[in-house]
Amino acid sequence: MARIAVDVHGGDIGVAHNIAAAIDKGLSSDIELVLVGHEHQIEAELRRLSIPKTRFRVVHAEEAIGMEESASLSVRRKTNNSISVALDLMRRGEADAVVSAGHSGALVAASLMILGRIPGVSRPALGTRIPSKGQTAFVLDIGAFTDPRPEVMLQHGHLGAAYVEAILGVPRPAVALLSNGEEPGKGDALTRAARELFEASVLHFVGYVEGHEMLSKPPHVTVTDGFTGNVALKIAEGTASYVARLLRDELTATTRTKVLAALLRPTFRALRMQMDFDGIGGAPLLGVNGVVIAAHGRSAPRALVAAIETANNAARNELPARLRDTLPRQARAEAASTTLTPVTS
Amino acid sequence: MARIAVDVHGGDIGVAHNIAAAIDKGLSSDIELVLVGHEHQIEAELRRLSIPKTRFRVVHAEEAIGMEESASLSVRRKTNNSISVALDLMRRGEADAVVSAGHSGALVAASLMILGRIPGVSRPALGTRIPSKGQTAFVLDIGAFTDPRPEVMLQHGHLGAAYVEAILGVPRPAVALLSNGEEPGKGDALTRAARELFEASVLHFVGYVEGHEMLSKPPHVTVTDGFTGNVALKIAEGTASYVARLLRDELTATTRTKVLAALLRPTFRALRMQMDFDGIGGAPLLGVNGVVIAAHGRSAPRALVAAIETANNAARNELPARLRDTLPRQARAEAASTTLTPVTS
Repeated sequence: MARIAVDVHGGDIGVAHNIAAAIDKGLSSDIELVLVGHEHQIEAELRRLSIPKTRFRVVHAEEAIGMEESASLSVRRKTNNSISVALDLMRRGEADAVVSAGHSGALVAASLMILGRIPGVSRPALGTRIPSKGQTAFVLDIGAFTDPRPEVMLQHGHLGAAYVEAILGVPRPAVALLSNGEEPGKGDALTRAARELFEASVLHFVGYVEGHEMLSKPPHVTVTDGFTGNVALKIAEGTASYVARLLRDELTATTRTKVLAALLRPTFRALRMQMDFDGIGGAPLLGVNGVVIAAHGRSAPRALVAAIETANNAARNELPARLRDTLPRQARAEAASTTLTPVTS
Repeated sequence: MARIAVDVHGGDIGVAHNIAAAIDKGLSSDIELVLVGHEHQIEAELRRLSIPKTRFRVVHAEEAIGMEESASLSVRRKTNNSISVALDLMRRGEADAVVSAGHSGALVAASLMILGRIPGVSRPALGTRIPSKGQTAFVLDIGAFTDPRPEVMLQHGHLGAAYVEAILGVPRPAVALLSNGEEPGKGDALTRAARELFEASVLHFVGYVEGHEMLSKPPHVTVTDGFTGNVALKIAEGTASYVARLLRDELTATTRTKVLAALLRPTFRALRMQMDFDGIGGAPLLGVNGVVIAAHGRSAPRALVAAIETANNAARNELPARLRDTLPRQARAEAASTTLTPVTS
């Protein structure tokens, strides 16, 4: 049984929806949920839903961090906030993973403060899968930090590859850098510097990937800085929902189109499932000591359910232990491959 | 009559398609086309189409730049390439605008070399409209240069605003910076530094815009660096065509869905028109002495037709003169507003 601590105050959807997601019938039966938040609010909600409190562990947190607050300030001032309380439970070994749909900046800041970084990682990264017709497509950093050094991007390449191998089951995944063209001369200064490091690494580096290929023929792992990654992900999400809205507007324009659209409902449902950014499982924070999953803050309870499943999967597959081993192991492999290079002159 | 020089060797679609686009019946009747490329190939194509050569001016260019060549090297080595010949026609006053679906890097390099920059511009920028349900949404730089200084991004803000006012008819357009969040503290180091300059400028600056808002509620002008802009645009295009392909796959899955889809054909056509990145008019290169429009290189003749119309519109509205005046005028306005600030201590 994996014990998943869920921050019930996270996100824009409110305590009721967070709890509704946490008790969703679709969730794996081997999950032991810990609801973290204001006890009175949680108890009131459980009463309203007629669920005995005994079915869950409830851990009280006095405060909540609002979506508009400053990340590091709020974490430092509100020491008893629901995110920090959940992370502290994991640090003390009373939970195996933490899920929050709350302020992702606060989640990153609190994780650094409470859990600390794993060996060899200068900065953690948020990663996420993106919809890609059954292909494995994982992107990081989607917004933990901006302005990384090239060395940090290489660390993220190793973390992303290890995650995709351990959790998504792809052996020796293909890793690419997001860029503005495929030729080696393309890229901004940061991306070009990172490319040199990736080429010299033991990763299965496949070069640059361009924006339009990220959904249609993606590498298993796409690495970019947290600024570009955040912009890229939000544009992909925004374009998908823009097109969906256009389609809905066109299909509801006349009675005739409405009738035909009703007959095609299963088709449109299948389409929606395939471009679903919410159902794809939340964003793991890679590089800290523990399993931390950020769920989409603006989204439906469905996104939190998917994030809880990802947390369960990561905890059961011992993600922290695997990631802790990754960078030292890569460093040894790189040292060995350097040693083995024949000296020819 | 605006005289538009069209590079017939540009892009992946080939000379025949470029010429087919240039003689498209949908084009405005007040356009005088100059076909620039290898005379023999152009003549053969006009014969095949049974079009008298007398209807067009044909200007010979001995060479063409391939899509895979290095931008600056190819422009310097192939002095008689079709892009440079077309630009030189404009420089000598024998054309009012140049359109090419060719190598956009070569188009930028040749424009800098042959036309030069307008006063106050350190680096030109490529801009483009994006589909946005009838709203005006113009983005720059989508890839002329990476790693600009913040001052250059401000120049691009002025150029973009002047273009949108002069050519798209929006007085005092709203200008935003593309970022990873709306709060002033967000952004990477470059974007934050640019924000300070934008706030102190006379532009109608509205702050940061996030990726998901770029299509749904865009500012009139979105400014970003050429790396992020290129990635962003390609992801938007890629997501739109990914969703379109998913929809097509679902609709052709069974005979029943095929029949229903056929009945909804006008609806899907209307949808396609609204998310059409090709038909939206090419990418003006802003900041050089002349009207230079890059058409989408991978795309259908339709994209070249739209780019020719944009060139015509820009030439008729005397874009170069207006842009030449922009930065000195803004500098004067900013100097004046500084002078008028009351000295309070």
